Amino acid sequence: MYKVLKQEGRAKRGELTTVHGVVQTPVFMNVGTVAAIKGAVSTEDLEGIGTQIELSNTYHLHVRPGDEIVKKMGGLHKFMSWNKPILTDSGGFQVFSLASMRKIREEGVTFRSHIDGHKIFMGPEESMRIQSNLASTIAMAFDECPSALAEKTYVQNSVDRTYRWLVRCRQEMTRLNSLEDTINRNQMLFGINQGAIFADIRREHAKRISELELDGYAIGGLAVGESHEEMYHIIEETIPYLPVDKPTYLMGVGTPANILEGVERGIDFFDCVYPSRNGRHGHLYTNQGKINLFNAKYELDERPIEEGCQCPACRRYSRGYIRHLLKAKEMLGMRLCVLHNLYFYNTMMTEIRDALDAGRFAAYKKRKLEGMAQEPDQKEK
Amino acid sequence: MYKVLKQEGRAKRGELTTVHGVVQTPVFMNVGTVAAIKGAVSTEDLEGIGTQIELSNTYHLHVRPGDEIVKKMGGLHKFMSWNKPILTDSGGFQVFSLASMRKIREEGVTFRSHIDGHKIFMGPEESMRIQSNLASTIAMAFDECPSALAEKTYVQNSVDRTYRWLVRCRQEMTRLNSLEDTINRNQMLFGINQGAIFADIRREHAKRISELELDGYAIGGLAVGESHEEMYHIIEETIPYLPVDKPTYLMGVGTPANILEGVERGIDFFDCVYPSRNGRHGHLYTNQGKINLFNAKYELDERPIEEGCQCPACRRYSRGYIRHLLKAKEMLGMRLCVLHNLYFYNTMMTEIRDALDAGRFAAYKKRKLEGMAQEPDQKEK
Ligand SMILES: [Zn+2]
Ligand SMILES: [Zn+2]
Repeated sequence: MYKVLKQEGRAKRGELTTVHGVVQTPVFMNVGTVAAIKGAVSTEDLEGIGTQIELSNTYHLHVRPGDEIVKKMGGLHKFMSWNKPILTDSGGFQVFSLASMRKIREEGVTFRSHIDGHKIFMGPEESMRIQSNLASTIAMAFDECPSALAEKTYVQNSVDRTYRWLVRCRQEMTRLNSLEDTINRNQMLFGINQGAIFADIRREHAKRISELELDGYAIGGLAVGESHEEMYHIIEETIPYLPVDKPTYLMGVGTPANILEGVERGIDFFDCVYPSRNGRHGHLYTNQGKINLFNAKYELDERPIEEGCQCPACRRYSRGYIRHLLKAKEMLGMRLCVLHNLYFYNTMMTEIRDALDAGRFAAYKKRKLEGMAQEPDQKEK
Repeated sequence: MYKVLKQEGRAKRGELTTVHGVVQTPVFMNVGTVAAIKGAVSTEDLEGIGTQIELSNTYHLHVRPGDEIVKKMGGLHKFMSWNKPILTDSGGFQVFSLASMRKIREEGVTFRSHIDGHKIFMGPEESMRIQSNLASTIAMAFDECPSALAEKTYVQNSVDRTYRWLVRCRQEMTRLNSLEDTINRNQMLFGINQGAIFADIRREHAKRISELELDGYAIGGLAVGESHEEMYHIIEETIPYLPVDKPTYLMGVGTPANILEGVERGIDFFDCVYPSRNGRHGHLYTNQGKINLFNAKYELDERPIEEGCQCPACRRYSRGYIRHLLKAKEMLGMRLCVLHNLYFYNTMMTEIRDALDAGRFAAYKKRKLEGMAQEPDQKEK
């Protein structure tokens, strides 16, 4: 059950109630690809940095340890010891980006595992069954994510097929949610809008999927190589054709600036590997811009990554110490950086919600962007 | 200030008061080679698993980030954010095991860094200065650790030199502790008994170093290839010649069984990389013996690593989940295993102290050894 609490322009302040608790939106989902956040971050750590919802990858978990194993272990929540909401992607994105030798037909896709090369078939029904085994809070529909460079005819055909797949997903999920031995019989389904950078295809597809009365709607196939301006334009063209009383999700996006622009254009959910991936490389987000802890000037820096930050890294450790850990390839260095970055993202989302609640999101966004544009590492050079 | 609270045979229940707090002995020091415990374990984690004292390596910290850097950052305690006692080794062991092209003279040792091959000279004074810069609670004397296979004449000459080095160490530390800008002017010095497996050399050396009235005495050069029986024998031959009213430290030892045998023979301090190194490989200590989480039989095991264990891994996560993390090479898997193993060691030391307090150490030791000898992984195969 989703409720819009407040609006400022197209920006929405919402609340999604699930069987695993309430998600306050806009929200950033913390990515735990194989049922764990990279960087030795535990679900206990996630609780300490204000994470509302975790995202895991269907394809990865299907390949290892296997969704049947996760089901036997009581579902993802029990498996990874996380009792708040979990969203699983459909596997589609990984099938089209990671796997090799794929063959697309109306039934689904045949491809080879990126781990051991064995042949796998996945279609809408398979994806729904896997996600039902995982027992996530929210399942994503199985879709094709066409290349940003694809021809219009290809994209139109692909999107038509993705629509037919969505109808099959909905049907299969209804069936799975009615079964006795399904772990989460209240699993929600989000549809995915596609259409590459063709606004007319996006709009038409958005209208058609909106009629299916799903639990939420994602915009997929963005942040795959197009410019930020193209991305913002596509969001603007698409959002008006998705129901305002359903949560929206901009898949795989993005930088803090991308998120602020996305919120302004009406997005509720975000996810991205940037904070964890950048953290593992010592690249840290602050309100004064990004810093690179490998920079020699931090060798004797006794300050925390960011003054005033209440994350587990900044509450206790200095830039100089964390830099030493990174240089010595100590895993603790990566962990502390990932914790700071995820905390930065989660805290920004809290600020966004507070700003929306107070009706001053536009001013907040302007100030936040100006602060982050300072890029201290470039300036002080 | 060290006080023996209770004795049972040669086993001592002691208490060492330092400027960084009191250490209850027997104690196992948790090894953080480069000012961090391997496996993404933070000092905050250490506080949660009952760690009393941390050990860091002088040689490693001298090479990276450099002891001068650590001094400028306020010393090791401030650098790594740990306010309980820290012991630093002297660098001697690493110089003789890690570094290459070493040349030993009366003044000290010239060798090449294992990181970039640059030439380093380290003698008693250098080791003391580095450890004073690190500002550890307890500094170890600079010694040579002769090979377990060395000829008796070589060992005798080496031990004589190590004695002369010890006198120089004590002198230099007295000087350093008197300097205005020394961070820890109450730094303690432990001498190190050497002599390979020659009981007469060990005894003679123990007598001579005991006369120097140091803050504590270590037995070094064991657990380097000799049998367990030889090791226990050497401890028995040496301990009677070290002062009972000073803490004793068995360097680099060992397995839980080694520690129980060491305590029985009068040892206060232990350190070893086994719990963290084994943890990173999924080898876990339990009261029923060691288990290897890579074993397929744990795939669907919903139990914690050890039933009833109150460590951060067992309180929350299952064997099946941690096994999945290890197989997927997720750092979180290593972290959870290291936390369990260190907690197991720390808890065993608490049990040992409780048993000594109650005057029933012998019975405790017997029961603990019997339990651990069950080796469940072998039995169930
Ligand atoms: Zn922080
Ligand atoms: Zn445990």
